[in-house]
Amino acid sequence: MKMSRTFVPVLRETPADAEIVSHRLMLRAGLIRQTAAGIYAWLPLGLRVLQKISDVVRAEQERAGAAEMLMPTIQSADLWRKSGRYDAYGPEMLRIADRSGREMLYGPTNEEMITQIFMSETKSYRDLPKTLFHIQWKFRDEVRPRFGIMRGREFLMKDAYSFDLDEAGMKESYEAQFRAYLRTFAALGLKAVPVRAPSGPIGGDMSHEFHVLAETGESAIFYDAALEDIDIDAPDAVERLSATYAMEEEEHAKVADCPVPADRLLKRRGIEVGHIFAFGTKYTQSMGFSVQTKDGGTIHPLMGSYGVGVSRLMGALIEANHDDDGIVWPDQVAPYRVGLINLRQGDADCDAMCDDLYERLSAATSVLYDDRDERGGAKFATMDMIGLPWQVIVGPRGVKSGVVEMKNRRTGEKMELSPDDAIAKITS
Amino acid sequence: MKMSRTFVPVLRETPADAEIVSHRLMLRAGLIRQTAAGIYAWLPLGLRVLQKISDVVRAEQERAGAAEMLMPTIQSADLWRKSGRYDAYGPEMLRIADRSGREMLYGPTNEEMITQIFMSETKSYRDLPKTLFHIQWKFRDEVRPRFGIMRGREFLMKDAYSFDLDEAGMKESYEAQFRAYLRTFAALGLKAVPVRAPSGPIGGDMSHEFHVLAETGESAIFYDAALEDIDIDAPDAVERLSATYAMEEEEHAKVADCPVPADRLLKRRGIEVGHIFAFGTKYTQSMGFSVQTKDGGTIHPLMGSYGVGVSRLMGALIEANHDDDGIVWPDQVAPYRVGLINLRQGDADCDAMCDDLYERLSAATSVLYDDRDERGGAKFATMDMIGLPWQVIVGPRGVKSGVVEMKNRRTGEKMELSPDDAIAKITS
Repeated sequence: MKMSRTFVPVLRETPADAEIVSHRLMLRAGLIRQTAAGIYAWLPLGLRVLQKISDVVRAEQERAGAAEMLMPTIQSADLWRKSGRYDAYGPEMLRIADRSGREMLYGPTNEEMITQIFMSETKSYRDLPKTLFHIQWKFRDEVRPRFGIMRGREFLMKDAYSFDLDEAGMKESYEAQFRAYLRTFAALGLKAVPVRAPSGPIGGDMSHEFHVLAETGESAIFYDAALEDIDIDAPDAVERLSATYAMEEEEHAKVADCPVPADRLLKRRGIEVGHIFAFGTKYTQSMGFSVQTKDGGTIHPLMGSYGVGVSRLMGALIEANHDDDGIVWPDQVAPYRVGLINLRQGDADCDAMCDDLYERLSAATSVLYDDRDERGGAKFATMDMIGLPWQVIVGPRGVKSGVVEMKNRRTGEKMELSPDDAIAKITS
Repeated sequence: MKMSRTFVPVLRETPADAEIVSHRLMLRAGLIRQTAAGIYAWLPLGLRVLQKISDVVRAEQERAGAAEMLMPTIQSADLWRKSGRYDAYGPEMLRIADRSGREMLYGPTNEEMITQIFMSETKSYRDLPKTLFHIQWKFRDEVRPRFGIMRGREFLMKDAYSFDLDEAGMKESYEAQFRAYLRTFAALGLKAVPVRAPSGPIGGDMSHEFHVLAETGESAIFYDAALEDIDIDAPDAVERLSATYAMEEEEHAKVADCPVPADRLLKRRGIEVGHIFAFGTKYTQSMGFSVQTKDGGTIHPLMGSYGVGVSRLMGALIEANHDDDGIVWPDQVAPYRVGLINLRQGDADCDAMCDDLYERLSAATSVLYDDRDERGGAKFATMDMIGLPWQVIVGPRGVKSGVVEMKNRRTGEKMELSPDDAIAKITS
């Protein structure tokens, strides 16, 4: 992609109203723009990252046996009356009347809707177990939206829902999602700590929050250092993690007698990016969903629900991956892998070498070519700010001696190479 | 994907309230379910098709030089007051008050928002021309939603917006989108006729609708048979198509003296799937967007907007691709390329052959394996209904003689082959 064709409005100044680093950098790197309080447009670079995060989340959901679907954003109030949550939900629910006065709402979550859809088609134990998920925009009318997309009102969430015939099945579905979450965060290069959670408004006995570690994180968590030694790919990883002490500060403060010796108790800052619940028959009972069992009886299926803040993950990724010059994207979510800088746009030799590099690199990987008529300093600052893993810099002096400069954004390491060697290094 | 793991609720009966064939088949094949009037959930098969259509639309937009971003669904009323459209839009706009009483709306289109975003970052002629697009859910509060997703309230639309410095640039951007539309519909295997359009509420002088031909289409169009001979890849295709007579019935009826001789005037049924407009400074003027020109003056950029109904295209695809037994998906949008049918689930030999075929086919293409414990008749009917291009049928008799049956859904052609030859035929 050429910079002249896409839309990357990088800011030189730090926006005054952005309190946290991810918010500042998302604005400065031209990833997002606010269009109303707590509501953001995703500009081309931001959208590319959002899609890559979604792809990682999706892949791990599918690997865990969940099937993807897509529920609409607008729901009917009647659906929520069936479960009894319509009145209980409070002012965070965006309530809407349509043209004929029917009460609707912008979905903050989908327990009712998925239960309604699944129960309408399901009569027998043979259709269970089943886990369905979707990645869809949600709206929560936060009283004080802030921290950019970290606490926005319109946000992208992956929510999965499991239906099982018995407690053992529900536990298995819960653990499959637990594992999927560990793998998702690991695949994004994030270190996540599962924390036993008070269950909140969705209800249920078994519940964990997942906190991504970042020095600039919003909340403090306390956990047993032993947690860091658990191999998440081990068969008993979920069991061991569940059994290891980890608490959010507020909950930890309530623990009279912490079982972890002081020298093993770690305090770290984190960002909550996921929340999973197993709540049994809460919705299937209130909404009247029952299935026939093998032996001719009927039961209410047992459910769990599993949320990941997909847009929030982008904030967490930036909190965990930045330096003074800007964002430092991990390879797997970088909007482009290579930034190509032409230091003398309009110079025939520089343009020719850039065109050649752009074409050959684009055949193998994703490239953002800064082809604007700007000074070198501005181009360097922009490229550092948007944080692509590799920079390839073409200038008149290098062109004469047949070399380009390559810079690794994370390590800062620079090297001079022939164009062929640069391409080989990047694509190997 | 195994049928037992995903969610494909096929209906044996034709739903009573579905008036048109695409609506009936989308319900029967388990692609969608209605969750409120004119609002649908996309079940796993439906979502896969929606994603494939989106991918085709996206690829042609990018090829035409447009950059993808993503604007939010909820907009502020103030934004629409700037252009003067808030009061003018009428009851199809879903108007919302948030918790603090601020007036919001669910975006039916995005001219105001994209103008606001782009003008905030753009001061100079050097940042133009630019075409930006997004693929996002829209809401139009239809007074009488019907025909399933063809006239739903929440629907998926690709909308692109171009900004240019002069008339010639605007015409170029318009033609680039015109061409992208021709290519999009061709890539989907659809025959589309561009029809000169009255411009409607978005305004503007240059405007075309694109109608996909289907015998069961909603509207009649009249056009010069010469239109069918125009090669859409020719450099002058847009010019020639624009100059060739094509009108919707209502507009055609107003033409006193049709320039097309009766023997060349075709009447066909069609479905409107796209609408493009060039409206100049309508929004840039009302919203106060100006840029500096090269010679130091200022101008209001000239805009166009370009919509495709992505979810509507799925209806159009089904209207154009079905038979008495169900949907007949074109390869490029089929939810899976192959349907694997096990006629004797639980029979060790059938299961083993199916497992082997499933694994080997999945390595090369997308496969839906009907592993349910159902009778063969039900499995055949299901597979015909959901319309995957190829069926591979494994039964006890075939297993004994080392063959499977293969069926081409479109032609109905059947053949007996060894598993190796079946795989080779499908993956070649």
